[in-house]
Amino acid sequence: MAKLGFADFGHNLPEQVTQDAILNLIHYLNNNPKVHGVLVQLPLPPHIDSNVVTRAIRPRKDVDGFHPNNVGLMTLKRAQQQDDLLYRTSKFEYGIEPCTPKGCIELLDRYGVEINGANAVVLGRSNIVGHPLATLLLHRNATVTICHSKTKHIEKITRKADILIAAIGIARFVKRDWVKPGATVIDVGVNFAPDPITNKPRMCGDVDYAEVRKVAGAITPVPGGVGPMTVAMLMKNTLENAKRFWNKYYRPPWFMHV
Amino acid sequence: MAKLGFADFGHNLPEQVTQDAILNLIHYLNNNPKVHGVLVQLPLPPHIDSNVVTRAIRPRKDVDGFHPNNVGLMTLKRAQQQDDLLYRTSKFEYGIEPCTPKGCIELLDRYGVEINGANAVVLGRSNIVGHPLATLLLHRNATVTICHSKTKHIEKITRKADILIAAIGIARFVKRDWVKPGATVIDVGVNFAPDPITNKPRMCGDVDYAEVRKVAGAITPVPGGVGPMTVAMLMKNTLENAKRFWNKYYRPPWFMHV
Repeated sequence: MAKLGFADFGHNLPEQVTQDAILNLIHYLNNNPKVHGVLVQLPLPPHIDSNVVTRAIRPRKDVDGFHPNNVGLMTLKRAQQQDDLLYRTSKFEYGIEPCTPKGCIELLDRYGVEINGANAVVLGRSNIVGHPLATLLLHRNATVTICHSKTKHIEKITRKADILIAAIGIARFVKRDWVKPGATVIDVGVNFAPDPITNKPRMCGDVDYAEVRKVAGAITPVPGGVGPMTVAMLMKNTLENAKRFWNKYYRPPWFMHV
Repeated sequence: MAKLGFADFGHNLPEQVTQDAILNLIHYLNNNPKVHGVLVQLPLPPHIDSNVVTRAIRPRKDVDGFHPNNVGLMTLKRAQQQDDLLYRTSKFEYGIEPCTPKGCIELLDRYGVEINGANAVVLGRSNIVGHPLATLLLHRNATVTICHSKTKHIEKITRKADILIAAIGIARFVKRDWVKPGATVIDVGVNFAPDPITNKPRMCGDVDYAEVRKVAGAITPVPGGVGPMTVAMLMKNTLENAKRFWNKYYRPPWFMHV
């Protein structure tokens, strides 16, 4: 982060920390004008209510996009757009999109995958990846199907997908014959499972990469696919927050209105 | 509403009303402890920003469930449940579910339609019906597909639906051969189109009711299906708001803690 010119402060709290101590720290960061992004590393220990903690972060500093207000604005297609940075009224809504789903969309865009009109299938319905990603794909005019642990005949559904997102948390869940030839496969899973050859535990995704890559038109690896993109989007969200703050409070008198 | 024991006050404003006048009225209602539900009848004239107006309603009085905060809590599966009324801490989140989607779920439940594991197809992705209804069905373990104007071969998708929701706003859009025999069809559309027999304009839904009823296992008519259910859910949301308010401020000293 220092390379990008960001200053970052990690606050490592002991596991026995009280909820009030966390909330106090968040309030301090919320009110510190030098801080443009606050992020709580989940999961939290069981004696802490993570809903309360994520909600305590001021929505416009919530670079993870987990605050209900940001989730709502994103769902209603009212989250910030890049060019809205110049738009400066009190009415403006500062919705922030969550990093992993935003990163997946960015990946599709950068590699020229057509989302408009595509048949997208999302495996997994978590609040962090599956559900918001389905929403973002829907906003980009994909026909979206959300599958999960209760879905019957999941392979019949995935075989129709032009864009297949795997975020279900089971190692090598998506097999070769589940994927339509030429489909785009994005693997969001992070699992540790024994390697089929060496039998040593290894990081792997929700997709059987070695096999599925033979049929897929495009596929992201794990590690090295969605992960780095998530971090990049976190940086982007923070930068945009800082720019907005600057626009709002520190616009110098010589600044011409564009 | 008087029959149910609700007092209601309609504020009919002229079409030329300013946005500030509407906001002032909303602030008055927000701060009036006798009011437990505030609802702005949409659509608003073009000089009013409806996002600003719906956001001005205090989330816990927003019985329509259109405030971004309520949308977010609903999306995150953190909206209120009936039995949470007894749960009384400052941590508790007062998410309110939107009326029409809630009414559709209630209809399915009352008629014993199995949502768990069903293949649900939602036609339409509006912020008022399609999108939140897809979310509620997903939370009830349905496999949900959202179709819209950009979807290709929509009839192939609808033919696989166990539960088909039509909220796309085109009169008699869903034909007889689009529906799987025995499927449950919920028609949220309200359109005015000439009657095929008398040729006079008549209210009709998004489903060709006369034909589809011959194959569907269950179907809601228009008018008389989802509409009255929406009103009932609006009353339910208001009642729950009032109960919560009473629980919070007016719990009498002799009230035993349950």
